[in-house]
Amino acid sequence: MMRSHYCGQLNESLDGQVVTLCGWVHRRRDHGGVIFLDVRDREGLAQVVFDPDRVETFAKADRVRSEYVVKITGKVRLRPEGARNANMASGAIEVLGHELEVLNQAETPPFPLDEYSDVGEETRLRYRFIDLRRPEMAAKLKLRARITSSIRRYLDENGFLDVETPILGRPTPEGARDYLVPSRTYPGHFFALPQSPQLFKQLLMVAGFDRYYQIAKCFRDEDLRADRQPEFTQIDIETSFLDEDDIIAITEKMVRQLFKEVLNVEFDEFPHMPFEEAMRRYGSDKPDLRIPLELVDVADQLKEVEFKVFSGPANDPKGRVAALRVPGAASMPRSQIDDYTKFVGIYGAKGLAYIKVNERAKGVEGLQSPIVKFIPEANLNVILDRVGAVDGDIVFFGADKAKVVCDALGALRIKVGHDLKLLTKEWAPMWVVDFPMFEENDDGSLTSLHHPFTAPKCTPEELEANPAGKLSRAYDMVLNGTELGGGSIRIHDKAMQQAVFRVLGIDDAEQEEKFGFLLDALKYGAPPHGGLAFGLDRLVMLMTGAASIREVIAFPKTQSAGDVMTQAPGTVDGKALRELHIRLREQQKAAE
Amino acid sequence: MMRSHYCGQLNESLDGQVVTLCGWVHRRRDHGGVIFLDVRDREGLAQVVFDPDRVETFAKADRVRSEYVVKITGKVRLRPEGARNANMASGAIEVLGHELEVLNQAETPPFPLDEYSDVGEETRLRYRFIDLRRPEMAAKLKLRARITSSIRRYLDENGFLDVETPILGRPTPEGARDYLVPSRTYPGHFFALPQSPQLFKQLLMVAGFDRYYQIAKCFRDEDLRADRQPEFTQIDIETSFLDEDDIIAITEKMVRQLFKEVLNVEFDEFPHMPFEEAMRRYGSDKPDLRIPLELVDVADQLKEVEFKVFSGPANDPKGRVAALRVPGAASMPRSQIDDYTKFVGIYGAKGLAYIKVNERAKGVEGLQSPIVKFIPEANLNVILDRVGAVDGDIVFFGADKAKVVCDALGALRIKVGHDLKLLTKEWAPMWVVDFPMFEENDDGSLTSLHHPFTAPKCTPEELEANPAGKLSRAYDMVLNGTELGGGSIRIHDKAMQQAVFRVLGIDDAEQEEKFGFLLDALKYGAPPHGGLAFGLDRLVMLMTGAASIREVIAFPKTQSAGDVMTQAPGTVDGKALRELHIRLREQQKAAE
Repeated sequence: MMRSHYCGQLNESLDGQVVTLCGWVHRRRDHGGVIFLDVRDREGLAQVVFDPDRVETFAKADRVRSEYVVKITGKVRLRPEGARNANMASGAIEVLGHELEVLNQAETPPFPLDEYSDVGEETRLRYRFIDLRRPEMAAKLKLRARITSSIRRYLDENGFLDVETPILGRPTPEGARDYLVPSRTYPGHFFALPQSPQLFKQLLMVAGFDRYYQIAKCFRDEDLRADRQPEFTQIDIETSFLDEDDIIAITEKMVRQLFKEVLNVEFDEFPHMPFEEAMRRYGSDKPDLRIPLELVDVADQLKEVEFKVFSGPANDPKGRVAALRVPGAASMPRSQIDDYTKFVGIYGAKGLAYIKVNERAKGVEGLQSPIVKFIPEANLNVILDRVGAVDGDIVFFGADKAKVVCDALGALRIKVGHDLKLLTKEWAPMWVVDFPMFEENDDGSLTSLHHPFTAPKCTPEELEANPAGKLSRAYDMVLNGTELGGGSIRIHDKAMQQAVFRVLGIDDAEQEEKFGFLLDALKYGAPPHGGLAFGLDRLVMLMTGAASIREVIAFPKTQSAGDVMTQAPGTVDGKALRELHIRLREQQKAAE
Repeated sequence: MMRSHYCGQLNESLDGQVVTLCGWVHRRRDHGGVIFLDVRDREGLAQVVFDPDRVETFAKADRVRSEYVVKITGKVRLRPEGARNANMASGAIEVLGHELEVLNQAETPPFPLDEYSDVGEETRLRYRFIDLRRPEMAAKLKLRARITSSIRRYLDENGFLDVETPILGRPTPEGARDYLVPSRTYPGHFFALPQSPQLFKQLLMVAGFDRYYQIAKCFRDEDLRADRQPEFTQIDIETSFLDEDDIIAITEKMVRQLFKEVLNVEFDEFPHMPFEEAMRRYGSDKPDLRIPLELVDVADQLKEVEFKVFSGPANDPKGRVAALRVPGAASMPRSQIDDYTKFVGIYGAKGLAYIKVNERAKGVEGLQSPIVKFIPEANLNVILDRVGAVDGDIVFFGADKAKVVCDALGALRIKVGHDLKLLTKEWAPMWVVDFPMFEENDDGSLTSLHHPFTAPKCTPEELEANPAGKLSRAYDMVLNGTELGGGSIRIHDKAMQQAVFRVLGIDDAEQEEKFGFLLDALKYGAPPHGGLAFGLDRLVMLMTGAASIREVIAFPKTQSAGDVMTQAPGTVDGKALRELHIRLREQQKAAE
């Protein structure tokens, strides 16, 4: 081994010992005739001092520059009292350099590692191997490794078998867009990269594996938003002979243990909240319970008002009118309200009505609002009582299709909560349960809210008779307003699976063609089973406090799904395309 | 939890306890008016007895069939002395069934689970979810999970960070054929699935990660041989500031610990053998040291003989003449020798000369051979002495281009060793070292024996002056004649990397175009680094004694790289192809 210690491991206990360090020159400075090098490795920094007495070594130290790779042997000594650095793990000591070997030189890096805040992300991604040297970047990926290690240990100890499922799978026309891989041996045919190992893990249950897990790469060829990547990682879990309470208990314990081990955080209880309640109180199926604001339905008080903006949605079965009280915010300036009005516009809201409650005792006079004149005072009082408004509060209103009101006030709730620093705690985990089986499309057809393999809480006959209102046996774990994971009890009965397919408009022939192997599996002795998948990238993002998913992936893609470092994707020659039985459209044919 | 115990966990200590089992009906039989069900779950079998006293439960038990999924509650009792089954973990007890619930029915499976030896592999793959129920199949995948878990634990404990590298990468025109993924956002461009994470792991070293590992999926679109799959799994390791001895020590310790933990096998020392010696003594760079036969060079004795089959190769600088003594096999029948002659023909050998040593004391008279007449007796004696031939032995000869002789006699050595049961031990691990940097192609150009990032044991100037003979800093771990893993110290110096590229005929422009990011990485402070990759599938194959790599992969592909269960690859619609800027060649265009 070239080194005896990592830089970050040095401390007072090594005083007087000779150590050998290997790493990068993080900073170099001359001061009072001696040279100081801060040497950096994975575990931290150490200060090495070279004095002119050792002529040859001093001359070498004088020639090194930032990011040179060096091997240094020297003696650990305590720093003088005034020179200690509490911000450095090894800040109480320094190393008196005896020998220095330059293992590799470095040109001046494209951006400095310690003051790079104005460096564009494209440059950082292009030189990712330099960006990852920054201790804060490396720390995120180290924590990621600790997280997966903790999860694996828990699952191993609890009898889960790590099984790999294929990356080259069958295209699935439903859902998100697949990444496709042309087959060389089956002309005109394509593999798809998996969006999840869903059916394979169910087949493993049919095969009797009982408890499965995999930290699995999944793929979606979709336009990327800030927190999406074309390839992402799932902690994928499936079990047999357990019901939803068992699965919730096992996976909740896993997450509790993870947070305890890695962040020393102990969670309170995880409330269980039905989907319907989450939408009603928080406008979201992944409520951020750190924020103590709630949506309150007030349509019943506004059905008769002349103000159509309210009475329209109040009388529409698909409409919603809801109020959101923000305590102590009546002094909010008009410009802030305008900003929030713009903000809810992103979610389709056409405006943002509000009432500032200055002095309730004065009745309408004590309220400041463009809308109070439209609402009879009696109704107004019911509304203000219902939301619990007291002097100094502001109450926002949303009135529109239910979806718009939920999305807009749900998002506003989060934004206001952060802006006004209303968060009541650091971590708010929960379970959302009792999801509907289906969502209705604009044309009246139904789509699975989770996926078509989710079991309903009813018989096949009840399901087919009136599918729209039926609940599923699905559950999502939510943390701080982010869906960490979701799962369900799956259908293990062939008749039930076929009933769901029929509700989704998939006829017998299509069932056989696309899901024949699943129906086969269900008829040869499928056990009751269910599971869950956690999004690892988001989990790591939350646990590291990263601002973007790209910060917790070693080599992420850009928003256009490319890699600016290796220049992927790239071109290929005509021979390769011919072997795959494809050709390019348009001008790109030149390569052929 | 539905079950209280796994079937395989039941034993005498539970005598008298009420237990609940969940699993599959493995076997059902009526005997003496009672019904016996062998119930199977992941951990094993348990015998459940139903007697007619419990009328309703007995009637249910009477209706169940093989592979029904059942939940049974009953009382554990000791079996009568004569009825114990030593082949079953729970064979000392049985369960008296009190209640039986059918959780799912099963049609008669396409093949029986206990006597399926004549079932074709295609049927087994089509119904993989049934085939995997067989305890011997499930055992292999369980062992696979234990193996990866043991390896991860070792690497975690030794400071290796598990880091994920991209699956969507840049095409590499060199080496094996890539699986390609058309990009939607970059028309005419393609991602490639990685053949290994080689360059990414090197970049992680440049980023200062110091110790990296990943159990990584890799892909090659090659025609499949018996032990190849389009997607395979690598235990991928890279370290900084360690030399080859350190890396060999760390990874050898990992494999030792793995075999100890999982198979309770303790290895002897791992001999280190230079590539040249391995080829000379065993005709292979992955010698199976369990077999005590060796190739012995005898060209010097045959340069002058008139028999051109020998004298030709003996005088050809690229030729080789070698002998392989098989002790005590002189009685081998002619038909066996004919079979071996055919066998070496697979490797290009045009024949298989031999000498049966019946009675050396009688001189040529005591030898039985078609070739002795061509060889002067003095030379013959030198040869027989050199190979150590004694009465009762047979000596085979190979004479051809060196490659043909090595391949043919190397393979024959293994085959004869197995046929004649000459193996001296169960496990023979070793390291092969001192590989050449390059192999020569027929046109005189050079190809990297490992890959172009492997460091040589010389300076850039020495390398460019005379590349053909130079050795690399590569090392392979070999077990029982299988290459378990291979690695090397990598080039961390830009000038050296460019020298290697030039030797391989990659000019400056092509270097920049294909490997610009690597050359960038090398110029901004790359540390000395090296690593290794183990083939997980082969490792599991060896440790489970599986006959094929398909036995240790949950959902393998067929030899034509398809999945007969899910029918992958499949067709996709014209819209999907248009979005990817490609079209099909030939008739397959119909779909558009």
